Amino acid sequence: MAKYRLMSPGPTPVPEKVLLRMADTMIHHRTPRFRAVLKGVHEKLKKIFQTENPVFVFTSSGTGAMEASVTGILSKSDKALVIRGGKFGERFGEICDAYGIETVDHEVAWGEPADLSAIEKLLADNPGIKAVYSTLCETSTGVANDIQGIARLVSATDAVLVVDAISGLCADDMRTDEWGIDVVAGGSQKGVMLPPGLAFLSLSRKARELAETSDLPGYYFDLKAALKSYGKDDTPWTPAVSLIMGLDSVLDMILEEGMDKVLARHARLADATRAAVKALGLELFSKRPSNAVTSVKVPGNVDGLALVKKMRDEQGVVIAGGQGGLKGRMFRIAHLGYMDEYDTIVAIAALEIVLKQLGSGLEFGTGVAKAEELLS
Amino acid sequence: MAKYRLMSPGPTPVPEKVLLRMADTMIHHRTPRFRAVLKGVHEKLKKIFQTENPVFVFTSSGTGAMEASVTGILSKSDKALVIRGGKFGERFGEICDAYGIETVDHEVAWGEPADLSAIEKLLADNPGIKAVYSTLCETSTGVANDIQGIARLVSATDAVLVVDAISGLCADDMRTDEWGIDVVAGGSQKGVMLPPGLAFLSLSRKARELAETSDLPGYYFDLKAALKSYGKDDTPWTPAVSLIMGLDSVLDMILEEGMDKVLARHARLADATRAAVKALGLELFSKRPSNAVTSVKVPGNVDGLALVKKMRDEQGVVIAGGQGGLKGRMFRIAHLGYMDEYDTIVAIAALEIVLKQLGSGLEFGTGVAKAEELLS
Repeated sequence: MAKYRLMSPGPTPVPEKVLLRMADTMIHHRTPRFRAVLKGVHEKLKKIFQTENPVFVFTSSGTGAMEASVTGILSKSDKALVIRGGKFGERFGEICDAYGIETVDHEVAWGEPADLSAIEKLLADNPGIKAVYSTLCETSTGVANDIQGIARLVSATDAVLVVDAISGLCADDMRTDEWGIDVVAGGSQKGVMLPPGLAFLSLSRKARELAETSDLPGYYFDLKAALKSYGKDDTPWTPAVSLIMGLDSVLDMILEEGMDKVLARHARLADATRAAVKALGLELFSKRPSNAVTSVKVPGNVDGLALVKKMRDEQGVVIAGGQGGLKGRMFRIAHLGYMDEYDTIVAIAALEIVLKQLGSGLEFGTGVAKAEELLS
Repeated sequence: MAKYRLMSPGPTPVPEKVLLRMADTMIHHRTPRFRAVLKGVHEKLKKIFQTENPVFVFTSSGTGAMEASVTGILSKSDKALVIRGGKFGERFGEICDAYGIETVDHEVAWGEPADLSAIEKLLADNPGIKAVYSTLCETSTGVANDIQGIARLVSATDAVLVVDAISGLCADDMRTDEWGIDVVAGGSQKGVMLPPGLAFLSLSRKARELAETSDLPGYYFDLKAALKSYGKDDTPWTPAVSLIMGLDSVLDMILEEGMDKVLARHARLADATRAAVKALGLELFSKRPSNAVTSVKVPGNVDGLALVKKMRDEQGVVIAGGQGGLKGRMFRIAHLGYMDEYDTIVAIAALEIVLKQLGSGLEFGTGVAKAEELLS
């Protein structure tokens, strides 16, 4: 008997009743029965995205929605501002490069949030910018950017604001319409509590107008086709039917709990995790921590790769290591989606056990005590 | 109690044990445990595709793999021969158009198979053709093309042959390496007996060489990234983990039955379906019928839309109608994937009941008797 506890920032655990909903009889997608489910999903997604605008469902991972937010919105001679600062900010830059879009880059040191005054200056210096690509929670660093602040700056220009909220959705507050965000990308395997395989994209009126005139090539992620099908509660291509059935169920769960409470739960678990790792003498990596994932610096005397491996292989607690240049130097504990207070306590307990095994001089229970204090 | 019987050419029913495998605990994809599953899937897919070449798994519907077979293989000034003759042949043309690829078209009347002598002439008249896009089973018409014959013609040129085998895979024989097919696209929700959400693409050495030099833009479906990850039993983006777990199980089921027996089962069910509808006085739509789906002309005195709707809403037997210009004039009964002899008998029985309700003068049991005769 080896229990498997998934505490990575995606994929995240899927509630058992949702797993069973997805195991129901396969149905055909071009039927009134499926369209009724999809119509409900479309309406419920709007609430999760805090928008009145359409939210499309793609059968792909989140990267597909990110690609659609470039190829479906921009045209050949357009210029984009890309806020880097982690693997996923950089991905927007790579997608722009792949389609020959000229980018102005706001380079952010990994672990730092985007710098609003630098963005303001880049926007002022480059008046032709058509879209700004930003990240709500930069999963690779655990940073939550100040999207509200960025939105205020972008609103003063003609550009549209695109936010990768794939790992931040449901964990870090993002008021799409209230803050004036034009395009939001989401994914199924994070705060939405589903397996990977679905991506989401919301489009403001302004973004939909750009989509109608965009001349970058594309087919599977073509937003004109997506818009046309959306109006009929349909999809251009065969959708991942079982995942959409599961989506119908998880969206009900999220809306029954209420978005405010979902966000508050993530904030509470994040607070407890941060306080617990600090109580263990560890240092946070992120200067503006997300409520989806806590990134922690590996102490100098500890083997960071061994830490993540022992957590997974010996304790059955699957956390994430550092990506790219941070491999071995950082680890990330998620508090995302179908995770609660006792999952967080388990993660801290396993961390204490493994740190001790790797030679840390900590006292057992120090981190857990702090977490209990904050969660009780 | 209303039983739901899916007899459409995709999605198709999913075996219960596979549904339960997909309902197992979610695991992380960047782990030895997942990579071991993916490695097994890669090896088993080769057997299904009858090739020694790599077969990639994409998280998308089949259309994504079709797009990858254009954007990942061709370069900007390349010319392609597209074999039309149905909705899916035309889709290849649309994808080429979306990326500015000049096409030479072999126009085929819907219901007819591709004409080998016309293809031979087009290849001779257009020596610069880089790729030929063809369809194994054209789902919209129920036609199985002579891929072996087409492959012989294409092998005599410098072009690569791309086959959309999305609905034909496991139903219509396709010997990828033996016949010299360079690129084969597949999908999960047809003969592979899974929910929709995965697409497959096999690439010969020649196709992989083209992929390395292709200069059409792309990101999510980029074959260079796919090739790089494949070598490490990994995927460039987060894959649909639960569907890949299911894929591992269905591939075992298919290989335990044996590809020869799987193909023979499809042939037997297809034979019985064709004979039964003929015994009912109906006419086949396809001039070269596929073993995945039987397309039947709606008799002049019958309302074709009502037929499909009554089958679905009153009998619980979900078949497909005609697409595009064939709406109301044709219906399609699948014998594809997790379907057996008694599923076929049920489909014919329901068809008899509904045809009678719609005013046909048939005698109950005529079609079923023929099916029993052939299946017994």
